[in-house]
Amino acid sequence: MAEKFVNERNIRFLLYEVFDAPSLLKYTRYADHSREAFDMILETALKLGRDLFRPSFREMDKNPPEFINGRVKVHPQVKEIMQICGSGGWISATAPQELGGQQLPALIGFIPMFIFSAANYAASVYPYLTDGAAHLIYSFGNEDLINTYIPRMYAGDWQGTMALTEPQAGSSLTDITTTAEPTNQGYYRMKGQKIFISTGDHDGVQNVVHLLLARIAGAPPGVKGISLFVVPRMRPGDNGEMAFNDVHVAGIYHKMGYRGAPITQLSFGENNDCRGYLVGKPNRGLSHMFQLMNEARIAVGIAAAGIASAAYYAALEYSRERPQGRPLTAKDPTSPQVPIIEHADVKRMLLFQRAVIEGSLSLLMQCGKYVDLEKVLEGKEREKYNLLLEILTPVAKTYPAEMGILAVSQALQCLGGYGYCDEFSVEQLYRDARIHPIHEGTTGIQGLDLLGRKVPMKNGEAAMLLVQEIEATIAIAKKEPQLQPYARGLEEAADKLKNVTGHLVGLAMQGKVDIFLADATLYLEFFGIVTIGWQWLLQAIAAQKALSLNPTGMEMNFYQGKLYTFRYFFQYELPKIEGLTRTLLASSGITVEMKKDFF
Amino acid sequence: MAEKFVNERNIRFLLYEVFDAPSLLKYTRYADHSREAFDMILETALKLGRDLFRPSFREMDKNPPEFINGRVKVHPQVKEIMQICGSGGWISATAPQELGGQQLPALIGFIPMFIFSAANYAASVYPYLTDGAAHLIYSFGNEDLINTYIPRMYAGDWQGTMALTEPQAGSSLTDITTTAEPTNQGYYRMKGQKIFISTGDHDGVQNVVHLLLARIAGAPPGVKGISLFVVPRMRPGDNGEMAFNDVHVAGIYHKMGYRGAPITQLSFGENNDCRGYLVGKPNRGLSHMFQLMNEARIAVGIAAAGIASAAYYAALEYSRERPQGRPLTAKDPTSPQVPIIEHADVKRMLLFQRAVIEGSLSLLMQCGKYVDLEKVLEGKEREKYNLLLEILTPVAKTYPAEMGILAVSQALQCLGGYGYCDEFSVEQLYRDARIHPIHEGTTGIQGLDLLGRKVPMKNGEAAMLLVQEIEATIAIAKKEPQLQPYARGLEEAADKLKNVTGHLVGLAMQGKVDIFLADATLYLEFFGIVTIGWQWLLQAIAAQKALSLNPTGMEMNFYQGKLYTFRYFFQYELPKIEGLTRTLLASSGITVEMKKDFF
Repeated sequence: MAEKFVNERNIRFLLYEVFDAPSLLKYTRYADHSREAFDMILETALKLGRDLFRPSFREMDKNPPEFINGRVKVHPQVKEIMQICGSGGWISATAPQELGGQQLPALIGFIPMFIFSAANYAASVYPYLTDGAAHLIYSFGNEDLINTYIPRMYAGDWQGTMALTEPQAGSSLTDITTTAEPTNQGYYRMKGQKIFISTGDHDGVQNVVHLLLARIAGAPPGVKGISLFVVPRMRPGDNGEMAFNDVHVAGIYHKMGYRGAPITQLSFGENNDCRGYLVGKPNRGLSHMFQLMNEARIAVGIAAAGIASAAYYAALEYSRERPQGRPLTAKDPTSPQVPIIEHADVKRMLLFQRAVIEGSLSLLMQCGKYVDLEKVLEGKEREKYNLLLEILTPVAKTYPAEMGILAVSQALQCLGGYGYCDEFSVEQLYRDARIHPIHEGTTGIQGLDLLGRKVPMKNGEAAMLLVQEIEATIAIAKKEPQLQPYARGLEEAADKLKNVTGHLVGLAMQGKVDIFLADATLYLEFFGIVTIGWQWLLQAIAAQKALSLNPTGMEMNFYQGKLYTFRYFFQYELPKIEGLTRTLLASSGITVEMKKDFF
Repeated sequence: MAEKFVNERNIRFLLYEVFDAPSLLKYTRYADHSREAFDMILETALKLGRDLFRPSFREMDKNPPEFINGRVKVHPQVKEIMQICGSGGWISATAPQELGGQQLPALIGFIPMFIFSAANYAASVYPYLTDGAAHLIYSFGNEDLINTYIPRMYAGDWQGTMALTEPQAGSSLTDITTTAEPTNQGYYRMKGQKIFISTGDHDGVQNVVHLLLARIAGAPPGVKGISLFVVPRMRPGDNGEMAFNDVHVAGIYHKMGYRGAPITQLSFGENNDCRGYLVGKPNRGLSHMFQLMNEARIAVGIAAAGIASAAYYAALEYSRERPQGRPLTAKDPTSPQVPIIEHADVKRMLLFQRAVIEGSLSLLMQCGKYVDLEKVLEGKEREKYNLLLEILTPVAKTYPAEMGILAVSQALQCLGGYGYCDEFSVEQLYRDARIHPIHEGTTGIQGLDLLGRKVPMKNGEAAMLLVQEIEATIAIAKKEPQLQPYARGLEEAADKLKNVTGHLVGLAMQGKVDIFLADATLYLEFFGIVTIGWQWLLQAIAAQKALSLNPTGMEMNFYQGKLYTFRYFFQYELPKIEGLTRTLLASSGITVEMKKDFF
């Protein structure tokens, strides 16, 4: 297994040279930190990635969770990971200090998430699902819930989950039927089934806390009648004793990849003794849950980039070491073979991977910075960052998820036949990566979210704000002679995006809702390419600036590599919008008109 | 597991309405057959697919070959498959009657291959590798070899393999080092290692016959010193007794997919007692082997389309049955959910799969027809079909291989979380499909073959012949009013292909070989899209003609579905050449200039 799975230098580049993480220190919320503290977090996270997460990467795939006597048994390393992530403050990294958190900016908090998921994605979901679930409790729950659950979750003793999906509903949350019957004892009596619940039960923790969507008896139909509950597997009593809360594991799924984490089917209230505790307001559950869903979508983007990063470094190591073939101009068969990294097509595959990974990570950190600014600013400024996050979330989830699969596939291709075999880790990464366009809202759902909700919201304000951000970057790049052609390229691309958007919104205004949204997935793809182009231009500005100071050795190599990858993106990836423009402007309606009997 | 894995109606459409299979009956070689015989072959192949291959599809994945005491143990069904494919004449389907074959046209012979690989790809390679290896023996081997090996191979008693790859050489065949030392007893003494040899040993047959590349002692370096040998695991003696031929299995690989067939590492002549029998002329081995390699490349294309077909029908069945969500315009959450096939985005994913599968199969059958015509025609005509095959082989391998992966991925996406779990067959198909861009020459190798060899060969004659074929189809389509815009679309696309080709060949003529070939993989992608567009236009002509006769019911649905898929290809897939044109005309040289230290 390749030793390297993330690029520390690139993380520092993004943190300090592109996103100026120390600029956040001026806000009271983050004032207790320092650049030195950020550095230490990065170094510790790298060490944990290497020593705590990485060693069990293959093992957890080979020995997936088992369902034994109604309980789920996981790899013993999970317990250690939860304990260390608890005691080390990794679960509570971005939580407020008053809750025992470190109150780190998300821009910093995303880094360990990226590193841990690159090291061992399945293992990383245990602490991070707990983090997200706890955030939901302290955002909307009452003091009693906070005091009862948060400390144990942050300690890594109790696992958090998000329990949304039901067998008959799938992505259609409006159709969930789990019920919550009010009692006069401060809790609700829960009954229902949930499927595909990650880490829904396991023996690496003492308890599992489900953040669960259900309907209070008598609630209106549809999403307006959904409420959010805390439903623990074991419920804490008044005297600290724990009682079984009638939460049963009906089974676990056997997955193609991402096998280190159990995905469970759960049954609540089979014996009519399952208690749920309302979080936030009745019937506002879905809107509360969106906090966690949005975080989870960003987390999927981070993990997808992480997995692709691990695959890239495996491919890079192999390509440097594997001699095969000769330069195209070397005709003498007795001349020595060269490492395959000398072949243009192999470099193309590696550049593609880098373009996807580093472009994605940049966008995700951009989102992290918006999260941080939204938290510390007020009024119009706060709303601006909120809207930017709203519109970027489906992109930050989907671009890494979809392109990450292709990146891992190209990594596998670099290894040829060996990539297809389990001597190397890439085949596992290929299987692991495939989950990301599915969970936390499929790509199709993200497309509808972007085009159907985020673009039109508030008269297109979110989209306009994003265009302004992109144009600001273009303006800076135009001042740099070497970046001018690329700045113009992105300008052209942004214009095409505006045209296409105008065309599609026009269809919506004519009431052609079906046609308007028929190609939402392609629109998302288009949007993603332009957005990542923007992030590459941002990175190129920083790299060009650094190169003007004439660095040498490894530093020079890093910035040159950065600029080659940037140019690769603009020459090989950005042109993909040409075909998408054609297809989207045509709005042929084929997929609407096609009848199911014609298949 | 979905019951349907191929579309019989579509096969008949291609055989009879597009490629007019009975038109081959006028040639003496095929005159013993009839349309009725073709129909019977199709029906029997479907039955075998269903009853012989399909039932062990999942089992062979769950119980892959084992390496025990130096031998490979495979699923017991393999033996039955080899026996039935032997006795039923499937291994020798296209072989000459004088050798016991059925002398079927390739156009017909490709159909069982497609069906069996859709039913159970790993199982299908046992008979088809044997077929290809036997073909090599009777094309270039002497009578003795033919008499000794062919009957047992066609009976399914002996397995055939192709043994090219070596550990230190990989794709670089010029670097193979296995040696053949001449003796004065009519055989050579072999010594060397081969890796990644499919079906290189197993207990489902009595013997394994390797068609192996090696160097005769003293041969010139490089590909000009490679010869072809038959090297059996057990060598037949004069009295019919069999002696161990010093061929050892060093191990088997554990693969991500395609697990039902063993991929072996072999060691020849460890005890200096491995006999090889020269096939054809000394030092002409690579050119002989190309017959098998070209066949194997087409076979990979067929298998890739077959796997995607199986995934498509699994996704189609699921999409018809799974209720989830409502039409975009239905706001009432109490209205019933609709099957997901009603959603435009799901139809888009299904259309994409169909466009890939049926476009690929059409191209492959086009190649089959060229194979048949090449065999029966003479002089200029024969050369024409030979050249068309030469230029289309890398495309017919790569388009299905690369796009098949994306098609299976979209099938998996249709099933959402279930697609990722092993309750359904799609996750296995996703793993199985990934082998195809790797084996029988990676996609990178195919790109170099197309742009570096096939396009420039004979002053571009192959490319010109192909353009003529495409233009002939365009001319017919232009006479049909409803097809005119598509005919013009393909004309435009072909013009772009000509421009890009001219630009690239221009670079070659300036001696810029590196830049010329740097984007060969993208050129192949471009070429593939245009070629499949041609095949879709061909199919649309036939479908339009059939629709003009006002068919009803299922027939009408079939032709409508065909035309929708055709339109889908032209609206969603063909525009992808726009971006490729930009990238290819730019010839930025990034991948040539990028230094390995910059990664």
